[in-house]
Amino acid sequence: MAKITSVSPLAPAGFPDLPVIDGVRFSTVAAGVRYAGRTDVMLADLAPGTTVAGAFTRSATRAAPVLDCQAKIGTHSDAGAAIIVNSGNANAFTGRNGIDATRAVTTAVAAALDLPETRVFSSSTGVIGEPLPHGRITAKLEELKDTLASDGIEAAAKAIMTTDTFPKGSATDVTINGKTIRIAGIAKGSGMIAPDMATMLVYIFTDAKADLSVLQSMVSALNAKTFNCITVDSDTSTSDTLLVAATGASGIEVTEDSVGFMEGLRRVMLDLAHQVVRDGEGATKFVEVSVTGAHSDDEAHVHAKSIANSPLVKTAIAGEDPNWGRVVMAIGKSGARADRDALSIWFGPILVADKGWVSPDYSEEEAAKYMKNQNLVIHVDLGLGGGTARVWTCDLTHAYIEINADYRS
Amino acid sequence: MAKITSVSPLAPAGFPDLPVIDGVRFSTVAAGVRYAGRTDVMLADLAPGTTVAGAFTRSATRAAPVLDCQAKIGTHSDAGAAIIVNSGNANAFTGRNGIDATRAVTTAVAAALDLPETRVFSSSTGVIGEPLPHGRITAKLEELKDTLASDGIEAAAKAIMTTDTFPKGSATDVTINGKTIRIAGIAKGSGMIAPDMATMLVYIFTDAKADLSVLQSMVSALNAKTFNCITVDSDTSTSDTLLVAATGASGIEVTEDSVGFMEGLRRVMLDLAHQVVRDGEGATKFVEVSVTGAHSDDEAHVHAKSIANSPLVKTAIAGEDPNWGRVVMAIGKSGARADRDALSIWFGPILVADKGWVSPDYSEEEAAKYMKNQNLVIHVDLGLGGGTARVWTCDLTHAYIEINADYRS
Repeated sequence: MAKITSVSPLAPAGFPDLPVIDGVRFSTVAAGVRYAGRTDVMLADLAPGTTVAGAFTRSATRAAPVLDCQAKIGTHSDAGAAIIVNSGNANAFTGRNGIDATRAVTTAVAAALDLPETRVFSSSTGVIGEPLPHGRITAKLEELKDTLASDGIEAAAKAIMTTDTFPKGSATDVTINGKTIRIAGIAKGSGMIAPDMATMLVYIFTDAKADLSVLQSMVSALNAKTFNCITVDSDTSTSDTLLVAATGASGIEVTEDSVGFMEGLRRVMLDLAHQVVRDGEGATKFVEVSVTGAHSDDEAHVHAKSIANSPLVKTAIAGEDPNWGRVVMAIGKSGARADRDALSIWFGPILVADKGWVSPDYSEEEAAKYMKNQNLVIHVDLGLGGGTARVWTCDLTHAYIEINADYRS
Repeated sequence: MAKITSVSPLAPAGFPDLPVIDGVRFSTVAAGVRYAGRTDVMLADLAPGTTVAGAFTRSATRAAPVLDCQAKIGTHSDAGAAIIVNSGNANAFTGRNGIDATRAVTTAVAAALDLPETRVFSSSTGVIGEPLPHGRITAKLEELKDTLASDGIEAAAKAIMTTDTFPKGSATDVTINGKTIRIAGIAKGSGMIAPDMATMLVYIFTDAKADLSVLQSMVSALNAKTFNCITVDSDTSTSDTLLVAATGASGIEVTEDSVGFMEGLRRVMLDLAHQVVRDGEGATKFVEVSVTGAHSDDEAHVHAKSIANSPLVKTAIAGEDPNWGRVVMAIGKSGARADRDALSIWFGPILVADKGWVSPDYSEEEAAKYMKNQNLVIHVDLGLGGGTARVWTCDLTHAYIEINADYRS
């Protein structure tokens, strides 16, 4: 597996203080799925009445647990629910064996917690193409069940890490009619992060009461502006999974008009998405790519992704080189509409290119100084229309090569 | 500019012995466009009656000389023609100034060689976004004119290099009705090599006699199977240019039925395309990605490009890791159709994955041994239909980061 020698320089100062979400309990265990000397399975137990919405990778070679989750996500139930996640093995591209392994795990969890099997959601993350040793997970279910606790979310965030250099958590409170709804989430992911959702697992919990259809439409809309707007290396995992569980324990119902709740959920999702980029394999810079003036939001997104995925742009950022020519190149190749002579580019506050050529006030020295920052903004205005998009990425460094030329061997 | 310390380990043994093409003369000069101590301008003088076909980058931010070439390529003329190329400065994203600079160069060449300006094709390659010091080029035109020689093609190949670590040339003979047609070509390119034609300049010369429409349709068809099937880093240049000039000096006319000529032209184009990949920035492995069993050739091409462009696949190859899980991932994300459980994968002769899961005979040790080869073949059969494609790429190494984190600064 990857050689991880130190925490990303872009990591937050520490794991945030996440609130207890009524109706959710966590436990973790070291099952030895692949890793030694660390926890690698987490269980979340969700109270009766919990609704679970989700979003998943669009990969054509999705892993068995993803297909299983997708099939279950639309079903209503008043029963409780559970989420079980292992790290170390993705149970992906394992054929019929993969389906059987997923079923073995979810059936055993259902029996242990006395739930219908359709209410047990599972994820697996790690190596692709090796059979999941599911017996090692099910052998630990009694222990997992016996240690469930409402304050176990940080331990859960740690148990699902693979090449991550820090655990990822985020929380917020939302006040509706003087009453408080809590939202807390965890995520893992640092490589294979790209186009259709980042390569990652994300679990968000709230004590709001929400109809499945309301929760699902919020999650789908917010996913498009958060996890689908980050990229580390343009590679898309076969296992991307986002689950949002609303336990209803606060008694406060949210509807499609609950702007405050949706904004709170958006904050948590965006924060976790940014943390995944900040743990991008080998990352030393956190980069926002902002595109305005496109013919449509969709075309703006295509341009932003093209810039954020370009190896030449990303290596220039690693080298602290204000090489805006490569930004022009990335726009040109994106496939979306652009007019070279209407194009303006800013690096942070610095106008680099003004309507098709280098700005008369541009100072390479000043731009090079800006590039030394850890957080960078590249802004492109296409000068064509009202379409906008924002995407977040990191630089491409030697450490990315180190991590990925050796993973698995 | 890039730190180039040594010739690519994938380079051919030496520059090939290219034949003289009747009707073509070359000269080169050190004009100091950007580089010191080396030639950086080449001129090719083409005899009256020469037809010139071409293919160009589809970038929306194409450079001025590319737009100028495209406008001229379809025009018939019995006059001679010329190709002038400088390295060091791409004259791209230079606004109105770029158009003026291109015109200044082509007008001066036309005057020096007594040609219509519409018959002077120019290319520029190098840094983007800086004004082309065209006066340095035009100041050398008399010297270029006075030193034109029919045996100058190798020097021309050297003058157009930028980050290339070796000059690229290829030639073949074609016999039609007992008479010989000669074809010889040169190319430059090593980075920013991707989707819609590689980032490169290619000039091919033949003494065949060919109608423009015949030559153009051959070049377009062959381009789709050669230069558009290579990728180093998925980045597409704003300056990609392929020109094929047929002088007619052999007196032998080729038609759309001249299968032998087309095959000869294909050989030269494919050889030059492979040489560009072999000079891929930081490359240590030359990789053919072959996809069969897709729903269509187009979908096979999408899958092949997705594999060949994946940073995770390319770093695994650099690490000599038979990480076929990443090949599965790249197929899944490509957007073209795939059925996980119909998928088979070979690394060279080794069947790795058989219809959706690891082959029972697979030996990781044997596969790891295969990955130590310098030339690798990854073959994927989708098991869906008759569509096929082949794409060529290289691995992604530390040297790519070194070259590109420092270029320009």
